[in-house]
Amino acid sequence: MKVVKFGGSSLSDASQLKKVLDIVKSDIKRQIVIVSAPGKRDKNDTKVTDALIKYFKNYINHKDITENQKWIIKRYKDIIDELNLPITLLEDIKQSIEKLATLPIEHNDYLYDSFLSEGENSNAKIIAEFFKQSGLDASYVHPKEAGLIVSSEPSNARILPSSYDKIENLASRDDILVIPGFFGVTKDNQICTFSRGGSDITGAIIAAGIKAESYENFTDVDGIFAAHPGIIKNPEPILELTYREMRELAYAGFSVLHDEALIPAYRGKIPLVIKNTNNPSHPGTRIVLERQHNQNTVVGISGDKGFVSINISKYLMNREVGFGKKLLQILEDLNISWEHMPTGIDDLSIVLRERELTPIKEQEIVTRLTRELEVDTVTVEHHLSIIMIVGENMKNHIGVTAKATQALSNHNINLSMISQGSSEVSVLFVIKTQQEKEAIKALYQTFFAQQ
Amino acid sequence: MKVVKFGGSSLSDASQLKKVLDIVKSDIKRQIVIVSAPGKRDKNDTKVTDALIKYFKNYINHKDITENQKWIIKRYKDIIDELNLPITLLEDIKQSIEKLATLPIEHNDYLYDSFLSEGENSNAKIIAEFFKQSGLDASYVHPKEAGLIVSSEPSNARILPSSYDKIENLASRDDILVIPGFFGVTKDNQICTFSRGGSDITGAIIAAGIKAESYENFTDVDGIFAAHPGIIKNPEPILELTYREMRELAYAGFSVLHDEALIPAYRGKIPLVIKNTNNPSHPGTRIVLERQHNQNTVVGISGDKGFVSINISKYLMNREVGFGKKLLQILEDLNISWEHMPTGIDDLSIVLRERELTPIKEQEIVTRLTRELEVDTVTVEHHLSIIMIVGENMKNHIGVTAKATQALSNHNINLSMISQGSSEVSVLFVIKTQQEKEAIKALYQTFFAQQ
Repeated sequence: MKVVKFGGSSLSDASQLKKVLDIVKSDIKRQIVIVSAPGKRDKNDTKVTDALIKYFKNYINHKDITENQKWIIKRYKDIIDELNLPITLLEDIKQSIEKLATLPIEHNDYLYDSFLSEGENSNAKIIAEFFKQSGLDASYVHPKEAGLIVSSEPSNARILPSSYDKIENLASRDDILVIPGFFGVTKDNQICTFSRGGSDITGAIIAAGIKAESYENFTDVDGIFAAHPGIIKNPEPILELTYREMRELAYAGFSVLHDEALIPAYRGKIPLVIKNTNNPSHPGTRIVLERQHNQNTVVGISGDKGFVSINISKYLMNREVGFGKKLLQILEDLNISWEHMPTGIDDLSIVLRERELTPIKEQEIVTRLTRELEVDTVTVEHHLSIIMIVGENMKNHIGVTAKATQALSNHNINLSMISQGSSEVSVLFVIKTQQEKEAIKALYQTFFAQQ
Repeated sequence: MKVVKFGGSSLSDASQLKKVLDIVKSDIKRQIVIVSAPGKRDKNDTKVTDALIKYFKNYINHKDITENQKWIIKRYKDIIDELNLPITLLEDIKQSIEKLATLPIEHNDYLYDSFLSEGENSNAKIIAEFFKQSGLDASYVHPKEAGLIVSSEPSNARILPSSYDKIENLASRDDILVIPGFFGVTKDNQICTFSRGGSDITGAIIAAGIKAESYENFTDVDGIFAAHPGIIKNPEPILELTYREMRELAYAGFSVLHDEALIPAYRGKIPLVIKNTNNPSHPGTRIVLERQHNQNTVVGISGDKGFVSINISKYLMNREVGFGKKLLQILEDLNISWEHMPTGIDDLSIVLRERELTPIKEQEIVTRLTRELEVDTVTVEHHLSIIMIVGENMKNHIGVTAKATQALSNHNINLSMISQGSSEVSVLFVIKTQQEKEAIKALYQTFFAQQ
């Protein structure tokens, strides 16, 4: 049994939905279909979810909502018309959309979630009906019926561990189930959504719950490439990737899926396949716990800007018991998340994302480090990028770091920092952002183009 | 004005003391001389300090101390006789040594320190007298007179900041001052020693106090070499080194001076010169705040064994706020000091010294990480070495890491970890101890022999 999830761009109009139908029909194992809300049909279009947000805002501000309702209903009507689905379906959806504007505004923590969830919910109804009309034995299944009972955290729901028992029952169904993604139901019967983009999460939970053979995530790209196509022309596609590799690549710029979405699938040991609705014969990228295929030593090179380094030196720092912890306490006091802490002997750097630091916080850190930790020097370096070279096979190939540093050196790219942890899935370089593209090109040239 | 400090091996007998005299005479600026207790005359000899420890132990255990006293007095008598110094000096020293056995044993936290200090104290008296007999205007100066007022921490004294004002007055003296190293006097007039080897500390304090032109530390080696002579045959001598470089090299195996000894000199911006009493024309190694000479990019390569790495992985660790701090808390609970914490994305290693870990503590860490931090995997790797490549100039030479990793790769030396902090004074490699010597040879070959 496979769980298949389709993103908004795969569900934007009738022609896309016909592709979806073909994909589901082409593999009898594709029995559970998780759907997003309809995405944009073209560049200037509005996503249904964004339309629902506007609708919500006007409603709580007691403004006129007629246009909002009309636009959203028209959006679904177009799809229904194009697919020649029964008019009763439109009536049902119209009612659901209009009913939102009768929900209580005061003391209702779940109002926003209720509005947003209707994007996926109505779409699931349409797709189930479309599948039925096309001869499939398909059913719309509400998340409550599916067993998606979640924590009472509006817009940030988490699945309750006890849900998995009920979800497992879905495996015994013979029909094709169409389940709206993105939300679940609390114990108090409230609609509660995952964080945005959370249809991926629904798919991962269901896949883990029914112990699916795989979880196929259909998007509008052929999968993951060894480097960003915006920097490297026609980069190599990655056919297979481990979850660890995916995480390392996603950390610095690769963002095909939400990281959190992967947890249930990862824990459930379910292979995740990223495929393209518009090119379903392409094998896509398979994300697994352990890679079978012996691909390149390096599977991918990613880069991301927006990092800052706080560089601290203090003579005999290394001898000072508790220095590191005091430092982390200062960061915690200022509510700053840090990423890396490379240490020399009397030097230490804290690498964090630029967004964690305001000018005021930056000044506060410098002041507190100087006053409380009596550091000799502290400097803050902005405009840094992180480059990751990723590959599980690296641990058996000692020359990777040598090759990488040589390539960067040949291109006069100065390394602010290198970190190779003992996991050896990746090597991390911190460089100046202005040299990021050149660095990725140099590394890609070394590890891919020359092979 | 220069402060000159002589170690025990430079003061072991008359022939050595004559070298010391020549050294002091040869430079009119060498006006303050800090002396240790007499060291070994040959391999099988006993250091006076060790003899004093035995004397102390017998005394507090109410055993016969006659032989102890006799041996120590004879030791000084030999020197006095060889130098033809007046017999009254021996009488003074004899009294001082014997007087130790009249000090109260009970409720006397400073008894041990009083015994030990007499090694330096008596030697300073002899050397001052020898200088005078040789025509120098020299005076023995007790640390109390010099202004060395220290904290009341037996065997671990620290200089009180207020002392520096008094010490500064020494600068206005015209005679040559011979001051015993290793101890000071508390506000309550108790003899209190620095940590062992602390004559270096005395010298650094006095040098900082009088704002000396330099602090010359005379030992029995020609200075510091670019690599350990036990591994590399005839390694290059290092003529000039910054304090930071010295610290980085000292961290992994280079141990010419006590690190703590350097603090006052470092803070006082006093150049420190390591020289050889037995080869005073050799320029030695000059340790400065900022290097003038443009030497090699890499100044030295050091290595030290006895490290352990605790390798932790947890999916989405990177997203978990406070993970690092919780981890450090567990280490603190177990009273474990750590050295480095290289981080990947979902991987983190803690590198620490083997001596920090008992089998019980190791088990406790694994248990707590698994139970409290719910890590996916934790492994402990023993028998690791740290290799440091050190040089302030590295920051202007981007190819150093590339060359180093290439050299290690060529010798099939696998890197468990690399850390290059933003200080860029050093690159740190963690490797298996069994490959340490080969690694140092490969790196030395790359950075020195090929130039």
